[in-house]
Parts: sequence; C-alpha cells; structure tokens
Amino acid sequence: MLVNNIEQWGMFEVALEGPDSGNPFLDVTLSAQFKCKDTMLDLAGFYDGNGSYKIRCMPTRMGKWTYVTKSNRPELDGKTGEFICGEASASNHGPVYVCNTFHFAYADGTPYFPFGTTCYAWTHQGDKLEEQTLATLKETAFNKMRMCVFPKRYLFNSNEPPSYPFPEVVAKSRKPDLLSNNRNVEPPKCWDFNRFNPEYFQHLEKRILDLRTWGIEADLILFHPYDNGAWGFDHMPAEVNDCYLRYLVARLSAFRNLWWSFANEYDLMKGRTMEDWDHYFQLVQSLDPYNHLRSIHNCGSFYDHTKPWVTHCSIQHHAISRVPSWLKKYGKPVVIDECGYEGNVSMVWGDLSPEEMVLRFWLGFVQGGYVGHGETYVNQENVLWWSKGGQLHGESVPRIAFLRQIFEQAPVLTPVEKADMEFLNLMAPEPLASLFGAHKGSGDKVIAEGGWNNEAGGYNSDSGYYLFYFGMHQPASRNFNLQDDNYRIDLIDTWNMTIETVAEIATGQTCVEMPTRKFMAIRIQRNKPSDSPDLQ
Amino acid sequence: MLVNNIEQWGMFEVALEGPDSGNPFLDVTLSAQFKCKDTMLDLAGFYDGNGSYKIRCMPTRMGKWTYVTKSNRPELDGKTGEFICGEASASNHGPVYVCNTFHFAYADGTPYFPFGTTCYAWTHQGDKLEEQTLATLKETAFNKMRMCVFPKRYLFNSNEPPSYPFPEVVAKSRKPDLLSNNRNVEPPKCWDFNRFNPEYFQHLEKRILDLRTWGIEADLILFHPYDNGAWGFDHMPAEVNDCYLRYLVARLSAFRNLWWSFANEYDLMKGRTMEDWDHYFQLVQSLDPYNHLRSIHNCGSFYDHTKPWVTHCSIQHHAISRVPSWLKKYGKPVVIDECGYEGNVSMVWGDLSPEEMVLRFWLGFVQGGYVGHGETYVNQENVLWWSKGGQLHGESVPRIAFLRQIFEQAPVLTPVEKADMEFLNLMAPEPLASLFGAHKGSGDKVIAEGGWNNEAGGYNSDSGYYLFYFGMHQPASRNFNLQDDNYRIDLIDTWNMTIETVAEIATGQTCVEMPTRKFMAIRIQRNKPSDSPDLQ
Repeated sequence: MLVNNIEQWGMFEVALEGPDSGNPFLDVTLSAQFKCKDTMLDLAGFYDGNGSYKIRCMPTRMGKWTYVTKSNRPELDGKTGEFICGEASASNHGPVYVCNTFHFAYADGTPYFPFGTTCYAWTHQGDKLEEQTLATLKETAFNKMRMCVFPKRYLFNSNEPPSYPFPEVVAKSRKPDLLSNNRNVEPPKCWDFNRFNPEYFQHLEKRILDLRTWGIEADLILFHPYDNGAWGFDHMPAEVNDCYLRYLVARLSAFRNLWWSFANEYDLMKGRTMEDWDHYFQLVQSLDPYNHLRSIHNCGSFYDHTKPWVTHCSIQHHAISRVPSWLKKYGKPVVIDECGYEGNVSMVWGDLSPEEMVLRFWLGFVQGGYVGHGETYVNQENVLWWSKGGQLHGESVPRIAFLRQIFEQAPVLTPVEKADMEFLNLMAPEPLASLFGAHKGSGDKVIAEGGWNNEAGGYNSDSGYYLFYFGMHQPASRNFNLQDDNYRIDLIDTWNMTIETVAEIATGQTCVEMPTRKFMAIRIQRNKPSDSPDLQ
Repeated sequence: MLVNNIEQWGMFEVALEGPDSGNPFLDVTLSAQFKCKDTMLDLAGFYDGNGSYKIRCMPTRMGKWTYVTKSNRPELDGKTGEFICGEASASNHGPVYVCNTFHFAYADGTPYFPFGTTCYAWTHQGDKLEEQTLATLKETAFNKMRMCVFPKRYLFNSNEPPSYPFPEVVAKSRKPDLLSNNRNVEPPKCWDFNRFNPEYFQHLEKRILDLRTWGIEADLILFHPYDNGAWGFDHMPAEVNDCYLRYLVARLSAFRNLWWSFANEYDLMKGRTMEDWDHYFQLVQSLDPYNHLRSIHNCGSFYDHTKPWVTHCSIQHHAISRVPSWLKKYGKPVVIDECGYEGNVSMVWGDLSPEEMVLRFWLGFVQGGYVGHGETYVNQENVLWWSKGGQLHGESVPRIAFLRQIFEQAPVLTPVEKADMEFLNLMAPEPLASLFGAHKGSGDKVIAEGGWNNEAGGYNSDSGYYLFYFGMHQPASRNFNLQDDNYRIDLIDTWNMTIETVAEIATGQTCVEMPTRKFMAIRIQRNKPSDSPDLQ
C-alpha cells in the first residue's frame, strides 16, 4: 500500500493491531526502521490502548520512505510499508532549531522568532474552555505556548483535570511503593504507574495539533513542582519517570511543533538531583531522532545551560538587562520565558502593568534575546490565562503583535556592548556610546549589565541595521554618526504602535528629533544601493 | 564690647583692619581661639580684600563666648572680644550630621532627610536668574542643593560667570608654571593663583545664606571636571588646591548649612590620584572645627566610602535597587545624588520621564536611602535647572514634596532583605517574603540586589512601621500577616498624591485591596495603645 500526501515534516502513522492482554505498555516492544535514500530513522512505537499499537514518523526529506517493524510479538514484527513524502504546504516550515548560535529557524531555513505565551494547564480544562483558548490565540501574535503535560495544582487552579495520565487503581490493589503521596485530596487517587492512560495523551496530542494549525510551537513542560500533593506526578519513582519520557518521545517526537521543556522551576522539585535532570536530557536526546529543542526552566538558580544537551536557555528572571551577559555565558539563544506576567494578582511575578510587560519585551528583543508573555488578571470566573487559558484581557498583547512585526522584518541583533567599540564609534547614539567609554572605570560600575535602566540597543552591522529602545526615558532628540553610508530612520512609538519615517535618506552626523515621550524606539536601516538617489 | 543676639549655630564675625600691601593672602597669618566654658574652637581667619580681615565663629553652645586673636602682624594679634550666644531661633536646628549610622539629624536632634536637587552653576548666573532660582526653590520641598564653587563649562552652560575666584593677570605678568591650560577660550584668561578674589567668595556666601533662609543645605562641590579648558580650575597646581581649601574652610565653616562635597565626578578629573583625594579630605577634616559632612561624588567608579573621613556616600548610579548593598558595604548614609534627571536632553542621564524620576525616589527612600533630583528640559532660553537654576517645569517636583511629607512622618527605615527572615515571617507581604525564601538558591539569582524590579520595602520594627512600594507593578491586593498587634493601613498613590486609609485597626491575616494601578505604596503603622479600642 503506497500512501501519498504525507508532506515533509508531516506525520505518517503506522497503526497495528496487537495483544491487549497482560501489560502491553511493559511487555511489548515495538519499533520500526524508516528509510528514505540515505536517511534512516529508528523510531519507537507505543501502545495506544484497545489493542492498538502505533509508530509515528515525521519524514524529514521528500521522496519515497519505506519501513520495517521490529517487535517481541510476532503479530507486530516485520511489518513493512512505504509512503511518498511530498513538498511541505505553505504554512509548514518544519521543526524549529537553533540557527546562528543565538537564534532560531525552521528546518526549511525560515527564521523563527519566539513570541511565546504561557497557559500551563490549558489542556486540562475541558473542551469548551480549551477551544476558547485556541480561538483567543488565533487572534494574537503568539507562536509558542508553554504548557504542562501533567495537570497543575496551584493558586487559581484547583480543578481536577478531565482525565489523568495513569489509570487509577482501587485501594485494595495499591502497590504502596509505586504510589504517590496524596496529602490533600480526598479520596486520594492512586495510580498504576505500570500503565499509561492513552486517552490522556491522545487529548494532549489533539491540542498540540491544534496549536500546529495556528503556527504555534508547543513548548511542552515534562515535569513541574505544582502538584501540591494532589496527584504525586511530581515525585514518581525514578523508573516511572524514565518510562514516561520514553512513552512521550514515542508518541510526540513526530509532531513538528514540539519542544521539550524538561521542567518548569526545576529547582523547586525536591528530591531530584542535578544528575537526574542531566539524565532526563540525555535520555530524551538519545531517543528523539529529530533532535527537537531541549530546555529547562528555573525558578531561582539556573541550570547550567552550557551543558551540551541544552539547546537554548529558558530563563525566569526579571532583569532583562542581563540578556547580553547570558548570551555570552551560555553561547545559546536566550528565551526569558518568564520575566513576570501582566496582571494584578497579589504576587510580584504576576502583577506587571502592561507598560512594564511591553518594556521587558522590548529590552529583551532589542538585545538579541526573546521574552515570553503571560497574563494573570484576577476575574470572577477564576480563569487566568497563565494557568487555564480562556480569554486575554491585557493591554500588552497588541503591543507584542506590533513588536513581532518589527522584529520579523529585522535581521538578528547583537546587543550594543562595551566590547564592541568599533561599532560604537560608528553608530551608537552618543548616550549609549558614552556609557561604555573608557572613563567608566572598575569598582562599582555604573553599567549594570546592559547600561542604564530601560535603555538598550541592538544592531546587525552586516545589514546596517540598528535599533535603540528608550523605555522610561523620554529624550527630545538623539544624535547618531551615520558616517558615509545613507540610512532610513524610523521613529517607533512602542506603546501607541506607530512607526514614523523621520528620514528617508540620512547620512553623517544626524540628530533625530523625538517627542519627549516614554516607550520610544529609533530604527536605522542602511538603504540599499537602489534606494540611493545617485543610482535612481 | 559685648555682642548679644548671636544665636546658637548662628555666625559671629570678628572683623579687623590690617595690611593691604604685599600679598595678604600669603603673607599674613591670622587665627583666633574661641572659648565657651569647656568648649574651645581654634578658627582660621581670612583676608577679605581692601585691608579687611575676618574670623568667623559658629557658636556650638549657648553661653558667653570669648576670643583672642593670633597673627604674625601686630595690628591683628592679641585682639580679644566676647559675645553671648542665645537660643537658636525656631527654624535653626544647627548643622546636619550623621545620626543612627545610616541617617541624618540636625545638631539639635531634629531628624533631617535630604531631599536634594542640583543646580551646579546657579551662583554664576547673575542676580536676576539667581533670585529666580531662589524664588523657585522656595515653592518646592527641596532642602539640599548641590552646587559648585567653580564655574562650569559644559553642555547648556557656556556663559562666563560674572566674576572669578582668582584675579586675572595681564599677559606680560604671566607666571607660566601657575597658569591654566586655556585651550578653547579667547582671549585666554590667566589667573594669579597666589591671590583670591574676595568678591567671588562673598557672592557665594550670600547665596549660601539665601539657601539657609529657606532651610536648604548647601552641598558645596569643591572640585569638578567640567572646565573644558575654559579656566583651568580643574587642574591648578597642588599647592593652589591646598591653599584654596584652606581659604574655603576659613570662610565657610561657620555656615551651619554647609556640606563639603569634594568633587563632582572625581573620577573624570585627570591627573589626580586617589592619594590627592584622600589628602583633600584629610586636610579639610583637620581644619574644619565643626566637622561638617564630607562626601565625594563619582561618575563611574566609586571612591572607597569606607574611608574614615567620608561621612556619607554621595553616589551616582541608576540602579536604586542596590541601596541595601551599599548601606551594608559602606555602613554610612547612602545619598544617590544623581540617579538621572527628569528631562529630555539627548543624553541618557538627563532624559528620565517624571514617572521614572519619582519611581527612583521611592525605591531609594523606602529602602532607607536618599535620592536626589535634577531637571534637564531643553528650552529656548537654554536655562536648564540642573545647571543654571531658574524655573522648574517637571512633574516630579510636587510628587517629591508629597514623598517628603510621608518620609518626614516616618521613622528611619531598614530595607526588607533576605537576612531579615524574622521580620519576613512577621510582616512582609507574601510576594516580598517569597522572594527571599530558602528555595532561591545560589548561581544566577532571581534576586538582583533588592528583588524584582521596581518593588521594594522598608520597615522600622521598633515603631511597627512598614512601607512597601510597588512601582510599575499593579497588584489588585497584597496580603500581610499582622499577627497579634493592631495596625493602621494606608494606601498611597505616589503619582496622584493621595493617601487613603483602608483600615484603622487591622490585625492578623489581612488582605489589602488595591486599585490595579502603577506607582502605589502601602503603609502599615502599629497603633499606639491609646488607639486600641480596648483602652478607649
């Protein structure tokens, strides 16, 4: 049987009938080798319940693919098949990978800039709310979603999920050594950690596909500490954790919009050593044939993002001015997935004014980092976006869409820094340049990682592209030395979302007049030769 | 002759006629010993021009004072006199000194909170503008003025002063080794550094007295680098610097509202070693019998404020969140005299929005530090407050007055910090407390010197006084554990300048409702027993 219409980075699924008795999750092994020309993928299968076994393949190249299965059960072993992988559809650019050290691109080379948001437990809210979340997302510019595999028990999130990742066991069949410590929930739920609940994962997959439809990457959080005794998924036995990771890789690797986030606030998960986290990374890295992005998110202390299995830094921190130092320290993309959320809850991490949220986005992006969104406005329905999804109420969302437009037209940016004196002589506006001048000595430095608060610059000298953001400053002008090239200069109001071209062709010493207003930016782009009046 | 009506910390001046020939500045020595009971002051006199010599005494105690002069010239030697020092008038509290390690008080014990502003060159602008500056000051809450002895040549300040501290010499009498390097000014001015121009200092004294009239401390800057080749006062010969300091101490020590600021941006003054600065400090300390406050202001690198002759830290830095670490490091009051200025000039240090200026004030004060003001709005007249004085145009000024009201009613505050766990258990609002909890490990810390951006707290546990500021955060509520005591709780809108009492008597777990608005603060004060309903 020749299946057509599998597009590159689409998904081909081998479905086989097999044994339903015993424990298919543990007793049955299943894998397949997929081949296309000189490309070979060894892919694990998984049990999907009701006697159904599956092996999923994301074809990474066009052409004819063949496969042969391998199993310890004869009815699943030696099955063969083939399919034709055709061109990806227009909206399909493949999985996202690191590109140019500090940035990202899809597999087809299209640059990808993460404009992430967070709805940790949105897939555990039932279809009505989940579909509202999707409808809301569709209207935003977000293209990455941080979300948990496991349900969440935390402030503003005390509801039980519609289903669970493991089947419940009745008390009499409890195996105490495998059970969670159910402290607060009555009646305590006890899980058979030797089996999975396929429906739970089918639902998760449905939602990952929904995100894919809207061009949104699923930044999937594999472990998190916010269980609070409800289910015990935060402290399962070590062998269950491994089994769970294997099962996830088998089920989910073939989704092109999947990122592995090993934990939210890993450092709050008691009883795990750094070796445990290293092990999870290494295990998934060894199993995932597509090498999806891998990260881990801190609360306080950072994981050592220089470790080779970490593809990018997923950071929780409010001090966006540190982006340049993190880029340097880790040599990888810096995604500040949590810098605080717009909202008004009674916690410091969730009460940012929209102005502060947008300011943090700009500071991060202009310096070549990426910043993520979340929203935590209290409401009568007790549905806070950051946890359950639903609707968005904040004022930062359209401004983040505006920012996305600007950065998607921009080349990748390097932060303006002291080390970069050659550039500074050329181009940095005088105040930024003076910040990094020789007279700023050692000792207690004026320059705290990124200069004066709320002002930052980034550039791409190959493209002749310069972007300066002024935050809570309100200069009436800024001076630039454009030297001999000629540039177009735009004044950007990041809050009111306007772009005004103040000069089509500027050269030499140039003073840009500004409106004595907060939240402004200046964009300077070298004109192409064809834009030059000499050549027209 | 018995002079009455010299009030405590007023000024008694001995005026003597003496030789006008030769060089009275160098050739004549003059001093006097003043006595009152067991208090003895050895005071240097000075030549005030036109054959007039003066010795000034600020009586530090009430009672009968006597004096006897000493000179190498018989007509000035052995002169005696006496006066009665009476009670200080209501507005006279004496000089300001350090009090309670991190704070200030007048000599009579009245607490002094510096609410400073900066008009570096205001006394060099001619009477009309100078009197406008004074009239403006009178309407503000500022009680300290940073000002330079020497004139200033810098952006927005290219005018010559009406007079100079040294007499000019004509070219033929130039003594090259004593002359400044006049690079840019035509015709170059050449100074006789062996003499002073008494009129220049008389004018300065007049303005210091004007400030005294309005209760404003003169934070007098003795050296600064902003000469730019105009006059060369920034690189006078070493012996002239010493002579100048001696002359200043003789003339100015008896002004009770005088502070010695050894430099503005000392680290930009080329050709001076750290030993030079140490020497200036030690010289003035040894000469000034009243021990006026002594500080030195940085551009980049801090002077080592732990040195014993430094009375308090005068800091230039934007990162107000570092106040707690500076308090700890230096063990002295922290006055951030420059954190940036409200305005719109094209430099990062002078383009703060009023909101950012007020935010920095609050962050500093709430943590037990002090923050200074300046204003740099460009205008047609080219009169910027920070340099020349004149009028104020900004929006931060009334908000700083509002802040002064609040802090003058407050006890001295200690910043909320990690170390202070006992306090945190008692009282910090949950988000602040959680910031400093045990789970915030080492490595890259979430807590960057003072916690999350723009949120800070201070307290005085003896008084049961707690003040929390939320900056760009906008919580809809914050929770406090007031335990068994009962407290009054006020909600402060630092921008709209309102104080709303949300609870007269609160106790135990208390949720304070807030308006989802930026720039709010919460003040919690323990009720006195007489306020308690039980005792009424």
